[in-house]
Amino acid sequence: MGLVVQKYGGSSLATAERIRAVADRIRRARDAGNEVVVVVSAMGDTTDELIQLAHLVSDEPDKRELDLLLSTGETVSATLVAMALEAMHCSVVSLTGAQLGIKTDRFYSRARIVDVQTDRVRGELSKGRCVIVTGFQGVTEEGDVTTLGRGGSDTSAVALGCALGAPRCEIYTDVDGVYTADPRVVPDARLLPSISYEEMLEMAQMGARVMHPRAVELGELYSLPIEVRSSFHERPGTLIHGGDHVEVRKRVRGIAHDTDVAKITVAGVPDRPGIANAIFAPLADAGVSVDVIVQTTNRAGNAEISFTVARADLARALDTAANISREMGAQLESAANLAKVSIVGTGLQSAPGYAAKMFGVLAEHSINIDTITTSDIRITCMIDEAAVPEAVRALHAAFELDLE
Amino acid sequence: MGLVVQKYGGSSLATAERIRAVADRIRRARDAGNEVVVVVSAMGDTTDELIQLAHLVSDEPDKRELDLLLSTGETVSATLVAMALEAMHCSVVSLTGAQLGIKTDRFYSRARIVDVQTDRVRGELSKGRCVIVTGFQGVTEEGDVTTLGRGGSDTSAVALGCALGAPRCEIYTDVDGVYTADPRVVPDARLLPSISYEEMLEMAQMGARVMHPRAVELGELYSLPIEVRSSFHERPGTLIHGGDHVEVRKRVRGIAHDTDVAKITVAGVPDRPGIANAIFAPLADAGVSVDVIVQTTNRAGNAEISFTVARADLARALDTAANISREMGAQLESAANLAKVSIVGTGLQSAPGYAAKMFGVLAEHSINIDTITTSDIRITCMIDEAAVPEAVRALHAAFELDLE
Repeated sequence: MGLVVQKYGGSSLATAERIRAVADRIRRARDAGNEVVVVVSAMGDTTDELIQLAHLVSDEPDKRELDLLLSTGETVSATLVAMALEAMHCSVVSLTGAQLGIKTDRFYSRARIVDVQTDRVRGELSKGRCVIVTGFQGVTEEGDVTTLGRGGSDTSAVALGCALGAPRCEIYTDVDGVYTADPRVVPDARLLPSISYEEMLEMAQMGARVMHPRAVELGELYSLPIEVRSSFHERPGTLIHGGDHVEVRKRVRGIAHDTDVAKITVAGVPDRPGIANAIFAPLADAGVSVDVIVQTTNRAGNAEISFTVARADLARALDTAANISREMGAQLESAANLAKVSIVGTGLQSAPGYAAKMFGVLAEHSINIDTITTSDIRITCMIDEAAVPEAVRALHAAFELDLE
Repeated sequence: MGLVVQKYGGSSLATAERIRAVADRIRRARDAGNEVVVVVSAMGDTTDELIQLAHLVSDEPDKRELDLLLSTGETVSATLVAMALEAMHCSVVSLTGAQLGIKTDRFYSRARIVDVQTDRVRGELSKGRCVIVTGFQGVTEEGDVTTLGRGGSDTSAVALGCALGAPRCEIYTDVDGVYTADPRVVPDARLLPSISYEEMLEMAQMGARVMHPRAVELGELYSLPIEVRSSFHERPGTLIHGGDHVEVRKRVRGIAHDTDVAKITVAGVPDRPGIANAIFAPLADAGVSVDVIVQTTNRAGNAEISFTVARADLARALDTAANISREMGAQLESAANLAKVSIVGTGLQSAPGYAAKMFGVLAEHSINIDTITTSDIRITCMIDEAAVPEAVRALHAAFELDLE
């Protein structure tokens, strides 16, 4: 008898009808002879609605209280899924993060899992019950409820899969899996039957929203294969796994893009040690997450530091950066019309021709490159947001991603 | 520095604006130098809405799952009240029944409190924090969440007041306190400044909805004075306390009425031992709560047993009773047009004239009495529902309840 860990996202649980459909899928996994552990997100837009409610009583809701408030969303969906299963004569129990024992640190709204206790869930499984677990949440040593931040439910599911030694984790969502590019932008984008952890991480960090990088990292750490697939049909999705280590594939695997980008440039910075720290430490204190950082130095010995943030954080980042650049006599500029386009693939690390080809494709389409950054298996160009669809389609075709 | 335990009902917390008003009242109690522990119900009609949601996925929701689902309602209101207080710069923490340690038995949907742990709440109070506690819920020894059934949040508040040794418990609601009769029926009904536990119990059991009998019983057991008052203004309400034990007052204190009454009569029952048990044991198994029971026996040796149930339970009670009366060759009748009218007061136990006066008043108004039941401090007549307003007004005047 196998152990199956499944996770269902909010859109898969948005209505009573969908909850019954999810319950039916769980029942079939059980009837096939498996032990089944299911992690659920909050129904539909519940989390956003609870955040709005909090802001009706407080401009800046206390983080501990907000976490406890938000945790109710997953409790509602977990109990409803359990009731729907019970109505199908399937023995079941729901467990909150606190009841199961998903232990975290005390960083409310972005807690990290430190331990997953398995006694209770194993006990319930041994009684022949399916176990429905609230995603996105955990509990501190002191019994206070925390939430895991963005991508939290995916992380809960992968962490549970790792702790229970499951052979794999199935992530059910409202898309079919991981595509070679966003199918809304590239009509002939192809569903990838498999992708390596590293490639998925780069795709996710560079804008592919299908799975949160954090859950992928955890899967990689414990070598837990993760299948991303749709809850609305039966077709297989994309398996994220250790990849083909025998031979590095000479291929670009996908094109990612992200339009939620704002760029800040601090120009005329004196080039001396500690400058970067002087800029980025206050941003970290202000809770601004910085993505790409590029520093250049001119002959006169002045540095220019550019970095990108999510657009929602731009105002806060500018406030913080303004103080520092005033102190060091630097100039501050910002732009909110840029976007990132990336090519990702393990093949890139041993084949230098890909960068030249990418720049050539963009040049052919008269698309100007603002900034370039790279990793071992990724090349990212910052370009004008308006040029994104054309750039993604051109790159998808040039790297022959539409071909099997 | 005193310890104040307050409880706010759902209508006092129905909107963000009301939540802020409640927070302001809590803040004032704190600023007056008190330690403050607050028990909250779910916002407005949240509990009913969650029950409806459950019925969308299951015809008969599993009780453990339903309890965990319903418990989220109080968690939402507790965290919102805490956030609103924090926004007023008042140090505060919310605790669920599980976090605080309100331990119950395992009877889901009608759990009984077996222990209230006070370490966590005392620890928070000693840090200068107000403590907001979710009412209506507790947790079993195994960590499963239970709910306390009807009147649950009042019971939570009184139990906490008892466990913490508070000098009294304040129940904030949407009525001004306990009246000599329902003010919607009797315009000159008078707010009672105080009432004894026993009188309040009889009033509550006989239809005065202002407080659940269970919480009153608990208050009596621990001699905890309970003040019922409005959350919408500053006027004092009704203090429920040990009463005037020095001298039994020669007075009727109030008129209660209850129209949620259905009566079932089993006629032609053979009068032998075990008959009452044969009727009522299956009703208890079916979860039907029976209120008034009257048995009479005629000269032929046949008994007639009448009992009342809530109207919502009538169909279920008839189903159950039909089987038994068929077996014993008895006839079954039912009526759903009756109501109970009661006079209540500790004065009744030493003055036989009250019963005669009550019957006389009803006779003067040509109101027929179907059934009579009494306790030490109460006389109840079952009458036609349509006659209730006239009966209550006439009794209120006859017993001079409009006079101070």
